[in-house]
Amino acid sequence: MDMSQSDDATKGVRISRTTDEGSVVADDVLAVEEPLEIRLAYRGDYGVPLSRGISITMRTPGDDEALAAGFLATEGILDSREDLEELTVGPTEDASGLGLAPNVARVALRDGVDPDLDRLSRHVFTSSSCGVCGKATLEALVARGLARISGDDFRIVPDLLRSLPEKLLEGQSTFAETGGLHATALVDAKGQVTDLAEDVGRHNAMDKLLGRRFLANDWPLSDCLVLVSGRASFELVQKALVAGVPMLVAVGAPSSLAVELADSFGMTLVGFLSAKRFNLYCHPERIIDGNSSS
Amino acid sequence: MDMSQSDDATKGVRISRTTDEGSVVADDVLAVEEPLEIRLAYRGDYGVPLSRGISITMRTPGDDEALAAGFLATEGILDSREDLEELTVGPTEDASGLGLAPNVARVALRDGVDPDLDRLSRHVFTSSSCGVCGKATLEALVARGLARISGDDFRIVPDLLRSLPEKLLEGQSTFAETGGLHATALVDAKGQVTDLAEDVGRHNAMDKLLGRRFLANDWPLSDCLVLVSGRASFELVQKALVAGVPMLVAVGAPSSLAVELADSFGMTLVGFLSAKRFNLYCHPERIIDGNSSS
Repeated sequence: MDMSQSDDATKGVRISRTTDEGSVVADDVLAVEEPLEIRLAYRGDYGVPLSRGISITMRTPGDDEALAAGFLATEGILDSREDLEELTVGPTEDASGLGLAPNVARVALRDGVDPDLDRLSRHVFTSSSCGVCGKATLEALVARGLARISGDDFRIVPDLLRSLPEKLLEGQSTFAETGGLHATALVDAKGQVTDLAEDVGRHNAMDKLLGRRFLANDWPLSDCLVLVSGRASFELVQKALVAGVPMLVAVGAPSSLAVELADSFGMTLVGFLSAKRFNLYCHPERIIDGNSSS
Repeated sequence: MDMSQSDDATKGVRISRTTDEGSVVADDVLAVEEPLEIRLAYRGDYGVPLSRGISITMRTPGDDEALAAGFLATEGILDSREDLEELTVGPTEDASGLGLAPNVARVALRDGVDPDLDRLSRHVFTSSSCGVCGKATLEALVARGLARISGDDFRIVPDLLRSLPEKLLEGQSTFAETGGLHATALVDAKGQVTDLAEDVGRHNAMDKLLGRRFLANDWPLSDCLVLVSGRASFELVQKALVAGVPMLVAVGAPSSLAVELADSFGMTLVGFLSAKRFNLYCHPERIIDGNSSS
């Protein structure tokens, strides 16, 4: 293996490509996966300054500020843009010798903001397959008062939905090179992709996308849908709900709990979206036929 | 949405399916995603009995004992089958009212086993997109003495590799119903799938598969490859390395760090496997041409 750095999100590599006609050596491009630690700085009891690492995520470098902000906002640590005093991203020393030292996103909270770390700490060690990583308990989701989506007037017609997979693919520049990235996009009621984020981790792609709007003081996101390139899990639905998104559309399958959560909180959930068809799991009222929309 | 329970891994649901010819109501099947808490029972200082929840994972029910054992073994908490005194899985009370109470896998360690929870606790709250969830630090991977794969005699020919995607799909019974599950399989040098696990989370599928062999006292897994239905991430490579697997084969793309880790620890890594081709990223010595193998 001979690896060379090209840009932050991709890395060149020399590989051997085998078909039934034999093998050839070729240059290829990989999606970069590297650790980012998210570290909170805040004042504890008696104003004592505290600093605490609350997450390490394996992400594709780029847009790390948005990733950190989106993670903290969708996990309920940041309530609004104003809670954020400063957000900086920089390297740490490599203690491993393997080049595995994480970059660190340092997030300083405004004086007076007391982060509810119990939300994260009830289950001190969490692990998951694309699941509830880093989230306190499932019960906490209800207890912390996640609001039901309502009162939005987001509506879209089926034809526009079915046009989205092609638009998503057009926007995925790094995926086109590597085949190795998830994408998440904001789409308006006219079917236009207004923003797009890519990452090796689908939750990171969601955090980056939602985090950008959070940093722009643009929450709740009640006038758009979120489109994901893969499957719809419980956690992706939960993150979109926190941002106030009325509709989540997945190219892949939803899980049972994703459907239950979306249904309970008033979100429209669509899966298996392709140019030909889609499945609608709950809250059909936001999908209207072409005639009634014109 | 009208949801009915069918079996543990799938759930029936009534949906609306839309094509350009209109919408029809249809019965569909979802992959179940539900929380499992992994809780350790062990003796602390002075023999004090301790119980600690160390992980909540969103998984597809079934094979929970293997999932818990595989998670603990690949995260370095269990070194051998003998460390395990008892493993039971059962429900907890639902405190949320939403039906979100996790099942719990209770893992009692043999007297005298002192679990190194610091491995997990250094970063107390972890989160990730399919990344290093629940894992201590990246440095810990090196510090904890993960062994380089060597001395195995696993070899396979390219034609057999290219026959694997079809065999994997044949074995994915729940995927066939739901389109929503990742699969991980053990494959021998003759290209036979000897075991297969499915889950909504790819790390869970890996933990289940490796956990079964761990419980059967069948580690290290030096005479087989592991095949995954999706992409190859850092964490999947890491888990397979802990189990001593000499070769990881992915239908999807690997990340940069997955390649670096596999390369550093002597594992053969293959990506983009299809009936027509595959890419080889490092340690080609285990892929031999048909003539030299016969």
